[in-house]
Amino acid sequence: MTSHETACMLNASDQDAHVQIMIYFSDKDPVGPYRVTVPANRTKHLRFNDLDDPAPIPRGMDYASVIEADVPIVVQHTRLDSRQNANALLTTIAYSASE
Amino acid sequence: MTSHETACMLNASDQDAHVQIMIYFSDKDPVGPYRVTVPANRTKHLRFNDLDDPAPIPRGMDYASVIEADVPIVVQHTRLDSRQNANALLTTIAYSASE
Amino acid sequence: MTSHETACMLNASDQDAHVQIMIYFSDKDPVGPYRVTVPANRTKHLRFNDLDDPAPIPRGMDYASVIEADVPIVVQHTRLDSRQNANALLTTIAYSASE
Amino acid sequence: MTSHETACMLNASDQDAHVQIMIYFSDKDPVGPYRVTVPANRTKHLRFNDLDDPAPIPRGMDYASVIEADVPIVVQHTRLDSRQNANALLTTIAYSASE
Repeated sequence: MTSHETACMLNASDQDAHVQIMIYFSDKDPVGPYRVTVPANRTKHLRFNDLDDPAPIPRGMDYASVIEADVPIVVQHTRLDSRQNANALLTTIAYSASE
Repeated sequence: MTSHETACMLNASDQDAHVQIMIYFSDKDPVGPYRVTVPANRTKHLRFNDLDDPAPIPRGMDYASVIEADVPIVVQHTRLDSRQNANALLTTIAYSASE
Repeated sequence: MTSHETACMLNASDQDAHVQIMIYFSDKDPVGPYRVTVPANRTKHLRFNDLDDPAPIPRGMDYASVIEADVPIVVQHTRLDSRQNANALLTTIAYSASE
Repeated sequence: MTSHETACMLNASDQDAHVQIMIYFSDKDPVGPYRVTVPANRTKHLRFNDLDDPAPIPRGMDYASVIEADVPIVVQHTRLDSRQNANALLTTIAYSASE
């Protein structure tokens, strides 16, 4: 029984979006960046449990995420909760950055 | 058993709003624009399943939508989920554009 | 069995907030403005069904609301749904305006 | 059976965030400020029922909160509702302020 955190990302521009994700915790250093590409004029469904580079995200631990992209994208989080009471906080800050 | 995606649009201005909707997918080209008019000082309830010009929106496939209007409108999506697990991501960017 | 739309308004300023509410429909002219005062440094819980001046809000009809105030306020809508499928769209635009 | 209001705060900056929380009511003066620190590059999970300085938050009474910090933070409220119908309105305004 695990949480299924997902981020649905929309890139409505004509350029591929290079996305970086940092994961923050309450009692240890942040992990990341995780890197994902959302092709031009496409959506991408990201499952946080599938992220494993540079390291898998610890299960059963609250975390917050910051998402950055080099072209404007739209991000919506969805969460299929497990029975755990303590759920993750997912926050999104999407802005342009040159890589 | 299908999803009933709807967009409730409010045009609180004194001019009719001409609305264009683009639909984005994860693995194929966007479809659209779909065209809708929201009269001045009125709300409009749009059912995505009713859209069929230029083409019906594929059922059972995740999608994201971008909504544009030539006068500022307010859009709120509501969704009556079907039993499918994979639901659509609906995103809204409403801005002024001259047609 | 009716919907219980409420708007929770916070006025964190040191001046009373004079609030005007317009109600929009899909097939008839807007109704309003309804006038409410949120005292300085107070919250106010508004039930839309209690509004009756200039006219009660029709029951069982979808509507959207625009809320304006002469000092910045924060508005959050809550909705206890009745069994009706068609629910109201409540939209909020709060901005400063001199009366 | 009480409500469990929590605020999940993310400080993605390299400086500790000093947070002040004011609590507003419908019929009495605001209470606060409550003071919390969110360390640099960390999340913090705050339970409103744990706040007791300068005074515990009254149980069973609607309230709204304003949260300020001296470095930008991201705040997300979660609420595990009790059986009470009347729930708290939690609003968040986070901005920089020098202390």
